[in-house]
Amino acid sequence: MIKVCLLGAGNVATHLYKAFKSAQDVHIVQWYNRDLKKISTYKNDVTIIDDISKLSEADIYIIAVSDDAISTLSTTLPFENRLVAHTSGSVNIHDLDKKNRRGVFYPLQTFSKEVPIDFNEIPICLEALDKNDLDILTHLAEAIGSTWYKISTEQRQTLHVAAVFVNNFTNQLYRIAHEISDAKNINFEILKPLISETAKKIQEVSPYMAQTGPAKRNDKKTIKKHLKLLEKENHKAIYELLTESIKKTHGVSSPPRTRKEKSK
Amino acid sequence: MIKVCLLGAGNVATHLYKAFKSAQDVHIVQWYNRDLKKISTYKNDVTIIDDISKLSEADIYIIAVSDDAISTLSTTLPFENRLVAHTSGSVNIHDLDKKNRRGVFYPLQTFSKEVPIDFNEIPICLEALDKNDLDILTHLAEAIGSTWYKISTEQRQTLHVAAVFVNNFTNQLYRIAHEISDAKNINFEILKPLISETAKKIQEVSPYMAQTGPAKRNDKKTIKKHLKLLEKENHKAIYELLTESIKKTHGVSSPPRTRKEKSK
Repeated sequence: MIKVCLLGAGNVATHLYKAFKSAQDVHIVQWYNRDLKKISTYKNDVTIIDDISKLSEADIYIIAVSDDAISTLSTTLPFENRLVAHTSGSVNIHDLDKKNRRGVFYPLQTFSKEVPIDFNEIPICLEALDKNDLDILTHLAEAIGSTWYKISTEQRQTLHVAAVFVNNFTNQLYRIAHEISDAKNINFEILKPLISETAKKIQEVSPYMAQTGPAKRNDKKTIKKHLKLLEKENHKAIYELLTESIKKTHGVSSPPRTRKEKSK
Repeated sequence: MIKVCLLGAGNVATHLYKAFKSAQDVHIVQWYNRDLKKISTYKNDVTIIDDISKLSEADIYIIAVSDDAISTLSTTLPFENRLVAHTSGSVNIHDLDKKNRRGVFYPLQTFSKEVPIDFNEIPICLEALDKNDLDILTHLAEAIGSTWYKISTEQRQTLHVAAVFVNNFTNQLYRIAHEISDAKNINFEILKPLISETAKKIQEVSPYMAQTGPAKRNDKKTIKKHLKLLEKENHKAIYELLTESIKKTHGVSSPPRTRKEKSK
């Protein structure tokens, strides 16, 4: 049985609370938040506190607060030499106050408050300065059914950038497709199967092998047609930059000047 | 029973062949390709021909060849006033020779020769100049279990651009994430659940509502950190452009000059 104190009340904290609560091998000793109201819904199921000096003994303290608040919160902990882990993709493990043993427990996934999360599907990136602490982190990850990976701070920060590409930026491409379709009264539903299939394909085939389309074929006629169809400058710019990127990846790049002339 | 002649031997033609073949209400009269070798595998299951003058009578002739070849092929058809439909996302319906009745049967999906396709999952965009011809196209779409949409040429061409965004460009973002991860010896597997979830979320929630991350929060510190971590200029440029695009969508745009200064 791993005894956990959870700190914070955002999306990650709330999803971790639910996962810990339903895990057989995890006991949530306390859930701390400076504003009790945000977690008061759960007061009958777990001990909730807003006074950090009242934190009890536990095997691990999970700090799931915003990146900027992690370091400061770690200095206010009323104990020493216990395992404290944050859940951020970008904060350095050394930003945690060194009076405690330090770790990272970073679930790589997109969290929305409303959408239930299955931790079986979520890889957790673990980091610890000490082998025994890494064991505690792996046990905790396994207790909630997650696959875990030992990842250095630099690797985690790189993953965080990569996650922005495959999540935030991909989602923005969906958004642009939505805008383009709406402008011509096209039902966005038509594009959903393609969105699914694009993500599905990558589970088996590398993105390099999965690529198709006018940029990869260097089909200048279609590219020109598409650029003419796009009405917003921002959409055009993204189209041009990603087309160049695909061409570069697949070795069909044309000299920049020629390209600029052609797209005018 | 709809009698079909299929023309072409690429990915779309091959997948359509299989779908038509297994559909109860479709009979493939002939499969034409100028190079017989490409379809000779199927010679025991269907009549294959390489002489266009030998095309028999059918309810519909599906031209599934490359965009550039559609128009010319349509002029060589040895008959008049029959229904001829191409399968392209970007070719105008009027590019088909007007000696025949014209239509479009455009399956909006990414096709790889190796990956089997379930047409139940594929929306088909239909266009015809005549109501009766549209009926034939809808029957054909329904016969292979597809959902269909009546789409104008302009809408279809717009959808084709939108498809480039959600498929080719999204896949290139996956590729960049793959490159970034590889450079730091990070297993790309870690990102796959996030890729799946990002596509899955959009099936229920609009891309606007689904957005999260540093750009949407206008989290300048993280954005700066990410730009510093990115080693390739091309990756930096894409990061900056898509970050600006997200900021603009969510009304958190900062003046360009300030942004440029900050990202340095």
